[in-house]
Amino acid sequence: MSRFLFYSPLVTNEVILLSPEESHHLLVERIKPGSSVFLSDGKGNLFRGIYEGEKRGRAQIRVEEKVGEEKRSFDLVVWQAVLKSPSRMDWVVEKLTEIGVSQIGFFSSHRSLKSTIPPEKMERWEKIVLSACKQSGRTIFPDLIFLEQWEDFIFSLSNSPGTVILADPEGNEALWSFLQERKERSFQIVIGPEGDLTREEREEILKKAQGKRIKLSKKILRSETASLFSASVVTSFLEDT
Amino acid sequence: MSRFLFYSPLVTNEVILLSPEESHHLLVERIKPGSSVFLSDGKGNLFRGIYEGEKRGRAQIRVEEKVGEEKRSFDLVVWQAVLKSPSRMDWVVEKLTEIGVSQIGFFSSHRSLKSTIPPEKMERWEKIVLSACKQSGRTIFPDLIFLEQWEDFIFSLSNSPGTVILADPEGNEALWSFLQERKERSFQIVIGPEGDLTREEREEILKKAQGKRIKLSKKILRSETASLFSASVVTSFLEDT
Repeated sequence: MSRFLFYSPLVTNEVILLSPEESHHLLVERIKPGSSVFLSDGKGNLFRGIYEGEKRGRAQIRVEEKVGEEKRSFDLVVWQAVLKSPSRMDWVVEKLTEIGVSQIGFFSSHRSLKSTIPPEKMERWEKIVLSACKQSGRTIFPDLIFLEQWEDFIFSLSNSPGTVILADPEGNEALWSFLQERKERSFQIVIGPEGDLTREEREEILKKAQGKRIKLSKKILRSETASLFSASVVTSFLEDT
Repeated sequence: MSRFLFYSPLVTNEVILLSPEESHHLLVERIKPGSSVFLSDGKGNLFRGIYEGEKRGRAQIRVEEKVGEEKRSFDLVVWQAVLKSPSRMDWVVEKLTEIGVSQIGFFSSHRSLKSTIPPEKMERWEKIVLSACKQSGRTIFPDLIFLEQWEDFIFSLSNSPGTVILADPEGNEALWSFLQERKERSFQIVIGPEGDLTREEREEILKKAQGKRIKLSKKILRSETASLFSASVVTSFLEDT
């Protein structure tokens, strides 16, 4: 059986109808009415429920009891500039979800070869998030946002908690040694698009969001690789220290 | 122009004919005969040459002088068990090359859902390596190998330099804190297949190759994500310390 089924909000003793996609899992795995199933609301709450049967392709479940609660031990936001390749962005969503970041924020920048994200794409990513969370046993889903206006991105970056790490190939400080000196539990990583951020954009991030210029690697990393590379290193640091 | 063209071996004053694929780059970028081009042999040597023209779809180049030599500052081998999904293995090859590992070794294990790799696949991966090296400016290519027999894998693992990190969700030690205690410049990471290595396989690695059991993350990572996650953390450590 799937590790858990998704429904939100979950309230004990209520009877819910799962989405057709979620209902489908019960069907293909031949779960019998009367069986126990696990439900997550994507916010860290895990419930046990009883599958009562199917109604017009949708599984009916009685929510029985709360069995667990996962809490975030740290916050890691990755801000990824919109990329030209849709498949590389899908990949960023899947991998960052698996690693366990708390928010994936896409933003448009001057050199982004695409500057907008259609609603269907956001829906597709929500499905990727759900599937990756099931895969990796996460009951807290990352927030997924897209900011089309640069000003909105700068505002959100400056007003969110978390030290800002600006991935900058011209930076002097390396990621590992930078992290070793830090005590905080909250970071935001900013990754530019294929042609990187402009000098003006970088200056604005440094000034308005007190960004730290960090050289991620001695190699040139593709934008989406830089996202996963830096999120891996910061996650390893935050989980272990 | 492409950052560099690939040909091996390179010897000053010799005239070479590039492969059709490499020749194609000069053609589409409308490089004129008489122009300077850069050549790499994939072993860290960078040469300057003169493009003399095209003969039956293949570019003729006179190798003029050696202009640079890149040396490895550390060794990092990633041993990745063969995966069911071909695209996920392609992805491992591309990303590990970009990050800058020195060897990508695929091996078959008991629970690998596929156990062999056809020669065409190895050729495809060599092209992915070449393209990723150009992208990331690497003139030393990673070695790419496949060991079909478990005994060959164990032999190679045990007889290669480099502390063996066995990715093991049941391990007690975390990656970041493990690395902080290390002084060596050479590591081998072992990543199991979708269903992970069997207990016997893990025991053999621990015993014969003095492997260290390391818990990469508190999350469950897909096999290919575990490869990239651990290679990122170890690379960050090796480059910065």
